[in-house]
Amino acid sequence: WPRTQAITHRRSLQLRGVCVRDSWLSLVSDVLGSGSVPYLQEAPSPLAFYREWVCPNRPCIIRDAVAHWPALHKWTTRYLRTCIGSKLASVAVTPNGYADAVYKDRFVMPEEREMALSNFLDIVEKKSHQPGVFYIQKQCSNLTEEFPELLLDVESHIPWMSEALGQLPDAVNFWLGEEAAVTSLHKDHYENLYCVISGEKHFILHPPSDRPFIPYEMYQPARYHLQDDGSFSVMDEEGAEKVPWIPIDPLDPDFTLYPEYRKTRPFHCTVRAGEMLYLPSLWFHHVRQSHGCIAVNYWYDMEYDLRFQYFKLIDSLTKVVMKEKEAEGCLV
Amino acid sequence: WPRTQAITHRRSLQLRGVCVRDSWLSLVSDVLGSGSVPYLQEAPSPLAFYREWVCPNRPCIIRDAVAHWPALHKWTTRYLRTCIGSKLASVAVTPNGYADAVYKDRFVMPEEREMALSNFLDIVEKKSHQPGVFYIQKQCSNLTEEFPELLLDVESHIPWMSEALGQLPDAVNFWLGEEAAVTSLHKDHYENLYCVISGEKHFILHPPSDRPFIPYEMYQPARYHLQDDGSFSVMDEEGAEKVPWIPIDPLDPDFTLYPEYRKTRPFHCTVRAGEMLYLPSLWFHHVRQSHGCIAVNYWYDMEYDLRFQYFKLIDSLTKVVMKEKEAEGCLV
Repeated sequence: WPRTQAITHRRSLQLRGVCVRDSWLSLVSDVLGSGSVPYLQEAPSPLAFYREWVCPNRPCIIRDAVAHWPALHKWTTRYLRTCIGSKLASVAVTPNGYADAVYKDRFVMPEEREMALSNFLDIVEKKSHQPGVFYIQKQCSNLTEEFPELLLDVESHIPWMSEALGQLPDAVNFWLGEEAAVTSLHKDHYENLYCVISGEKHFILHPPSDRPFIPYEMYQPARYHLQDDGSFSVMDEEGAEKVPWIPIDPLDPDFTLYPEYRKTRPFHCTVRAGEMLYLPSLWFHHVRQSHGCIAVNYWYDMEYDLRFQYFKLIDSLTKVVMKEKEAEGCLV
Repeated sequence: WPRTQAITHRRSLQLRGVCVRDSWLSLVSDVLGSGSVPYLQEAPSPLAFYREWVCPNRPCIIRDAVAHWPALHKWTTRYLRTCIGSKLASVAVTPNGYADAVYKDRFVMPEEREMALSNFLDIVEKKSHQPGVFYIQKQCSNLTEEFPELLLDVESHIPWMSEALGQLPDAVNFWLGEEAAVTSLHKDHYENLYCVISGEKHFILHPPSDRPFIPYEMYQPARYHLQDDGSFSVMDEEGAEKVPWIPIDPLDPDFTLYPEYRKTRPFHCTVRAGEMLYLPSLWFHHVRQSHGCIAVNYWYDMEYDLRFQYFKLIDSLTKVVMKEKEAEGCLV
């Protein structure tokens, strides 16, 4: 014991003479490697997956996880029209592709429109033209709720993940949209398995330990509304409290306003048809896609265990330090 | 998302106007319940054990984990004398039962003596009288190294734990000693399965999140040496660097010197013959025992993953805050 303790102590001496407020960030170390997401060749055993990926909260891409799904060769737009073309789909419509994102001084949500899936596909296939960017992205388990017919071509859960976590997913979501549709940087308290059926999804990921360098601001919630003239208005949600959101766009970060964001360590990855991304809980993510990309994702509730305590501590320290600096007038 | 974020934000407002140095401790929350260690009725599945105990770093006592070991009914002192009585055992000898503990201004290690096991048992059974307290406690995998014959009566590893962790133990240790022998409060970077064969072990445990309230001081290493007159001298280890150790005795804490220790949350438990304690990595522990108690423990190396990062952050913050307070003269 004494030898190990002595080494630990020598390390601690390097902290001599520093101030908590300025030094704590150097203490948030991480066991993650470089900024690339590792690949697994096939679905792992439940235990190995829990031990090597879920518990350490590390993302990976699994190559042949869904190769056996009929959806991979069946889900053409023609098939979707035949199978569920007349069914109503909840579609998010925005002028610019940004739903649930900061626009000027608002947190702006999309216009939510119900339309027959065939009409939506007409727009994606450019057979009809409508103002705005259209995206099926409703995360209310819309695959099971709106398109149960499609479940036959995929799975209602991922058996090895359900066994690993000892639970079934809270939601299975279906995603289909135009290239311009973007999901702004945010995090979820879910273990996320994101499976691409056709096309590609482009992810920018930040580990939760990047939290101190990722800005949050408070915004009035608002919503886009298509006007008769084809333009979009932004209307405040009445009586809604302000919400914190991340103002930065990882594709074009404003380093003048948010210089700390330079210190983040983004992971970039592309998930291709047949592949599955394990996106660990509380990782920040920003998502783009190829035009007409189809994907299905599974949300499993996270364990509110030590990992959660760790990230909550980092989050709280970030906020306290910000408040302390604000109080001292270090920040405007 | 906005609703969840809003709740998180309201929580964060409660931190308004606080200083990092004084407030960070309130941010170290924990998901542990009360101060008692839960029982499992039998050995769990490897996956369930990893998910519910190892990953969240929570201790438990497993009732029937080693009930099938021949050792439970075979390991009498008579059997040990017959089987390995003539073998040499490494025995720790101290005047007071405290090996590897703070005594006055030293970190004092035991006199290490090699003696035939039968001679050691004579002392434990009070058939011969010698000055000092005797304890077989050498943690160099002494069961496999010194008494391989005994392995037939136990197991060389715990199969469900080895499968859970994906590795074999680094060490299997044999413990046998007098009632007065105490293991002082410390922590190890091992996942520890502690199995009692006969008698009882009494543990006082502190979760790693108690770190800010547990004092460390630097001590000159020294060692007990039995003198010809039967008394013990304390002799400094020549050339040894000072080591950090915990000066507090959980059985009789000096709250005047260490008032912060009142804020700890100790877990008390007794592990009885046939039971196994899972003592998670980095938990502080203090151990006592019934006279002649026999135990075997398995040390599995810990994963240096997020849990480790979390405790390292707490440890480092504790040290920085201490230094900051010292620099300001808040502490002597």
